[in-house]
Amino acid sequence: MPRTKRGNAPSIRDVAAVANVSVPTMSRYLKDPERVSEKKREAIAAAIEKLNYRPNPIARALALDMSESITVMSADTRLYGRTQTIFGIERKAQEIGYPITICVLDPRGGEHMLSSVRSCLDRSPAGVILIDFDRLTDSVVSRIPASTPMVIIGGPRHERRAQIQLCEYDSAYAMTRHLLALGHETVHYVSVPADVDARADGWRMALSDAKVPAPAPIDTTWDAEDAVEIGRRLGGNPSVTAIFAGNDEVAMGLMRGLALAGRRVPEDVSVAGFDDHTLSKVWNPPLTTVRQRFTEAGEHAVALLKEQIDDVVNDRRRGEAWTMFDLIAGDLVERASTAPRRR
Amino acid sequence: MPRTKRGNAPSIRDVAAVANVSVPTMSRYLKDPERVSEKKREAIAAAIEKLNYRPNPIARALALDMSESITVMSADTRLYGRTQTIFGIERKAQEIGYPITICVLDPRGGEHMLSSVRSCLDRSPAGVILIDFDRLTDSVVSRIPASTPMVIIGGPRHERRAQIQLCEYDSAYAMTRHLLALGHETVHYVSVPADVDARADGWRMALSDAKVPAPAPIDTTWDAEDAVEIGRRLGGNPSVTAIFAGNDEVAMGLMRGLALAGRRVPEDVSVAGFDDHTLSKVWNPPLTTVRQRFTEAGEHAVALLKEQIDDVVNDRRRGEAWTMFDLIAGDLVERASTAPRRR
Repeated sequence: MPRTKRGNAPSIRDVAAVANVSVPTMSRYLKDPERVSEKKREAIAAAIEKLNYRPNPIARALALDMSESITVMSADTRLYGRTQTIFGIERKAQEIGYPITICVLDPRGGEHMLSSVRSCLDRSPAGVILIDFDRLTDSVVSRIPASTPMVIIGGPRHERRAQIQLCEYDSAYAMTRHLLALGHETVHYVSVPADVDARADGWRMALSDAKVPAPAPIDTTWDAEDAVEIGRRLGGNPSVTAIFAGNDEVAMGLMRGLALAGRRVPEDVSVAGFDDHTLSKVWNPPLTTVRQRFTEAGEHAVALLKEQIDDVVNDRRRGEAWTMFDLIAGDLVERASTAPRRR
Repeated sequence: MPRTKRGNAPSIRDVAAVANVSVPTMSRYLKDPERVSEKKREAIAAAIEKLNYRPNPIARALALDMSESITVMSADTRLYGRTQTIFGIERKAQEIGYPITICVLDPRGGEHMLSSVRSCLDRSPAGVILIDFDRLTDSVVSRIPASTPMVIIGGPRHERRAQIQLCEYDSAYAMTRHLLALGHETVHYVSVPADVDARADGWRMALSDAKVPAPAPIDTTWDAEDAVEIGRRLGGNPSVTAIFAGNDEVAMGLMRGLALAGRRVPEDVSVAGFDDHTLSKVWNPPLTTVRQRFTEAGEHAVALLKEQIDDVVNDRRRGEAWTMFDLIAGDLVERASTAPRRR
């Protein structure tokens, strides 16, 4: 039966007393047994056996001066890419035996957000994974000490930190070229909220390389319902034959709006999304999109973070996992929502 | 600048020494200042001021013999209802200043799952919220000591625990009666995975009360794509005019399958879902469904848990928050995917 109260359980101190070693020696032993002499190791092992000592994770964290939990910092965790990324983090963290703590960045931003960051750091996490699909990090990253293991997923490049990129620019470029290759004269872009949108940049550059003037991008929210009205409006303009949406949920809202405007997908208008949302393939018609490897990114972030944590625990010189910049490319998935332009 | 290393920061022990009080008195002070004499309170406050002491949450957890984090136990966190519930938990926990730790229940079940439960309990959470949409709890609940604050969301009733129910039985009953009232001779049910499905029970009872024979329910997975084939098959049977799906994603997959079979929704077949997924209202046609108040349930669970934690911290007799059974009813949302039966 697990206990939540440990009143009668032996402490590190008890074990140290029975083994006749100091508490700092016990701390060293818990951190890295190799740093304690063989004689003391044996004495401690015997004391642990004798007292039936079971390490208290909180006491151990205090001894190691760090907690054994990985903190995941993210804004709104309900959004699709984040849910999938966090799932990958959970799965890998469970595999290596670290619990994860979710630190939700205050959506009001500014001082509110920094205050949520501070309160997470006060708990001395073993490491931090920052999900930066909102590109909020400049202010957050500078608050996290360089000595704290950290991996950033998404966002602008921070040279001195480990970071994983999902190649959104390249994927958006490829999708736009794909739509142009289907004979569409131009591609309209409907953007999800982001301070600097790599997807928009890829779209713009693809049009520019093809010498096609870029229509003004249209901003929308994370709520697919807001895209319905945009789809209806674009559907009223017969010159619109191809739309690229910043994510799949927006693409789904646009398709609903186009239907309300009496325009068929893909016969009248091609619509492409981004992410490969689980519902994309059952949409009617199934959605052409870019598959983002969110779960893989989450798992890889934990693997990189673990290397950094091991460096700290073993007092090693920092290895390359601290500044690694890894790219995880997306895939263009062609389904039934895009088609050659009808003349 | 936040620190992750606290080597030079004053400890509880330092403050106790300066204040000339014992460490247990310091613990009591941190737990509940009212339990320390006014004289000692003043001495401790002066020492805190003098040393510029900032409580170390880990040391504080050790002093209180509990961590200040709320552990959320859940199976696969990517599923819609869980994502929304966890969001509510996060929001409310942030408001009251508790971090949350996510403990993912091992999907292999049995001993694997219990082992993940044990490792979470080893960290002495301040309280546990168990999301039980899979109805796994009998084995899990019995592992959690009665003295640990806990709230269960969903699942079968546990009399000695606080629990929040989403009235799925009643909502499924109402939806089935609604479809019958539209003139459909019977209602087919496609079930999501669950050991005991309250939604299926509500559907069955509604048919029974209306003296309509129940067709065999059809089992599917959490993956909407698997429902496409079921929709195609049901679409091939002209006597099928109304389908009720265990959740909205399954309903979306069914609608895709019906379209592939050449059947129109709602003209030929009415389809209703469950949950009110964010994409339900932009589906084409928008989906008739039951709005489940997941976020509200998550927030309410934290509020109940906080009352239990306060009882523990203040050594109070248990209040009613420990066995409360709260119902949060759903709403039937009628959209365009259901219509009167055409004769």
